Amino acid sequence: MSKVAVLGYGTVGSGVVEVIEKNQDIVSRNAGEAVTVKYVLDLRDFPGDPIQDRVVHDVNVILEDPEISVVCETMGGNEPAYTFSKKALEAGKSVCTSNKELVANHGPELIRIAKEHNCNYFFEASVGGGIPIIRPLIEALTAEHVMEISGIVNGTTNYILTKMTEEGADFDATLKDAQEKGYAERNPEADIEGYDARRKIAILSSLMSGKTVKDGEVYTEGISKITGEDIRYAAELHKTIKLLARSKQTESGYEVMVAPFLVGKESPLFPVSGVFNAIMVEGNMLGQSMFYGQGAGKLATASAVVADVIEATKNAGKHVDIFWSEEETKLAGVDSVKNAFLVRVKNETPQEEVTKLFGEPEVLIENLVEGEYGFVTGSISEAEFTGKYETLSGAMGRIRMM
Amino acid sequence: MSKVAVLGYGTVGSGVVEVIEKNQDIVSRNAGEAVTVKYVLDLRDFPGDPIQDRVVHDVNVILEDPEISVVCETMGGNEPAYTFSKKALEAGKSVCTSNKELVANHGPELIRIAKEHNCNYFFEASVGGGIPIIRPLIEALTAEHVMEISGIVNGTTNYILTKMTEEGADFDATLKDAQEKGYAERNPEADIEGYDARRKIAILSSLMSGKTVKDGEVYTEGISKITGEDIRYAAELHKTIKLLARSKQTESGYEVMVAPFLVGKESPLFPVSGVFNAIMVEGNMLGQSMFYGQGAGKLATASAVVADVIEATKNAGKHVDIFWSEEETKLAGVDSVKNAFLVRVKNETPQEEVTKLFGEPEVLIENLVEGEYGFVTGSISEAEFTGKYETLSGAMGRIRMM
Repeated sequence: MSKVAVLGYGTVGSGVVEVIEKNQDIVSRNAGEAVTVKYVLDLRDFPGDPIQDRVVHDVNVILEDPEISVVCETMGGNEPAYTFSKKALEAGKSVCTSNKELVANHGPELIRIAKEHNCNYFFEASVGGGIPIIRPLIEALTAEHVMEISGIVNGTTNYILTKMTEEGADFDATLKDAQEKGYAERNPEADIEGYDARRKIAILSSLMSGKTVKDGEVYTEGISKITGEDIRYAAELHKTIKLLARSKQTESGYEVMVAPFLVGKESPLFPVSGVFNAIMVEGNMLGQSMFYGQGAGKLATASAVVADVIEATKNAGKHVDIFWSEEETKLAGVDSVKNAFLVRVKNETPQEEVTKLFGEPEVLIENLVEGEYGFVTGSISEAEFTGKYETLSGAMGRIRMM
Repeated sequence: MSKVAVLGYGTVGSGVVEVIEKNQDIVSRNAGEAVTVKYVLDLRDFPGDPIQDRVVHDVNVILEDPEISVVCETMGGNEPAYTFSKKALEAGKSVCTSNKELVANHGPELIRIAKEHNCNYFFEASVGGGIPIIRPLIEALTAEHVMEISGIVNGTTNYILTKMTEEGADFDATLKDAQEKGYAERNPEADIEGYDARRKIAILSSLMSGKTVKDGEVYTEGISKITGEDIRYAAELHKTIKLLARSKQTESGYEVMVAPFLVGKESPLFPVSGVFNAIMVEGNMLGQSMFYGQGAGKLATASAVVADVIEATKNAGKHVDIFWSEEETKLAGVDSVKNAFLVRVKNETPQEEVTKLFGEPEVLIENLVEGEYGFVTGSISEAEFTGKYETLSGAMGRIRMM
């Protein structure tokens, strides 16, 4: 019998209880023993809820109970999640989390503490919600040098971009609609400015490199400056705009960035729409593979946490190696990253000026939007592009091409 | 130090040696110890090949060498692969295979023998080539009741259907082209008649149900009757034709079938083209997730075998449970399966006859192909449809809609 405590009875935490109870048969079969929820830690009481008798307000009840072998941390945020997780691991209890902020900030330290105490710190739900990506990376693509990961890892921004594309609506109206439907938070900054995606690619990059990529060091652009006109240019190019989180192993280090990109039909990321997420992994032997599914949602995320509970139960008393050290990964810096760009300029800008700066355009788009034209550059480093773009007269915006 | 023997130095076997040697560092890190190839079993010699001194012709050298802990069976076919695998497992050596025929025919027996001898029978490469699907199913989607799996699991047929769609070519010419390019075998029956896909969905259905689905009992239609006209109807409906392998859990048992389907743009399977494969998994908590990648190819398939070698090495002396018993899964039979159909009939057939048999068509397509018209039925059971279709005058073909 494996007894579990759930820290935080919010959306994901209550989902964890629901998955364990509704799928009791399959969860217990796969864990090799019955899995039950003994405690739920929350500041609130939940009178009338089936778990009302299992609610505790003091984490020490959980930490001091030798029957508890696995703790699900579904609180979110750094504190008190960090302290509680650390104490649980020090007490030899495995911790399974959906908390990407904590994993991005303290992942390797918590993995090390888990190793020192023969237990596990698992975090499948921290990236891609219900998409199995962490376990495939560390347990299935094990014969591969992973050279690149690029993905759509934030459902809110993908929903907004999909709506803007389908309905030709502008950013502000679409954000408002997403907020009304519950797909965007009232304070949407973490999603729309790319901070959520940045945490996830920092975690994935750390697993790629075996060392630590700090999310604060990832070059990040959000989608708040994307306009209806950008969407029209994308359509004209038979492409679609996606907020991509990318990490690429190069000779000078890892190139890691989050930014809107124009994605063409040849990419399997092209049709990934709405709140769905997808993560492409390129291995040196395997070539491309892709993992697709619901990037968020109560039960999808909870299912990933419970899969970790099962893995922790199967490996009770034994640490499963996850190669992620506290040493920092060498980053290449954004300056050397090469991309092609779509650039929009005012009609007044002479095409000779464009050609002089960027060479002959790969594509020229005229008469699509009044008063301006667009062109596509060849592949050019970020540093070179930025230098030239800053001197370009009548510049109205630019988006990278995947 | 984990010493490995490779049975069969063909495409996949030589790929296994290549992956282990080229990715020695990451393979050994993930396995927890150095992994090296000690023997290659083949009837032939390979003078000048780096493995020439490791070639043996007698399997007993491998079976009797206590240093060999893992055997990669990349021979294909039932015999002698079955006998060699069984003897290796009985000697306590784990077996990792890419042989879908053997897994479909003897999987649960070999898993049982592995359990009895504290070793493992792993078969990630038997379905989806390089796409991680078996391990995600048994180690990541563990909190899920898997309700349905549908996928494009054969690269040859997907290549042919993609070419027919893109170039408007007919089946025979496209098959010939695929054979010339090495994407189809000289004897293409196993691929084009759906037998390869049927084995793979039998394996996946067995893992879904925990019991055995025999591939011979799967209702199977191939793609050899698909015509250029069918492709034109598909395009008119904004759909594409894919050979799908499907398995669905229903109250009356598992519905398992392989057949061409019309797939719409709303499905993530729609853009999966060429030799790529993709497998959608629907869980009762997670909803849909999809796994996409190269379904075949030397290094992609070999990478999956080597990932199994790593897992077997990590779990040396310990059997990892795979729930697949020799008991047979209850199948629902194809008669009760419900689908909508696109039907093509001669212009001479009165529309009243169509309406009388199938009700008012959902869609009517006239004047697309000379001398005929097409219509789409509502959802109808296979048995009812077949009964009616057989009485329909001027019937020219039908395809199921996903």
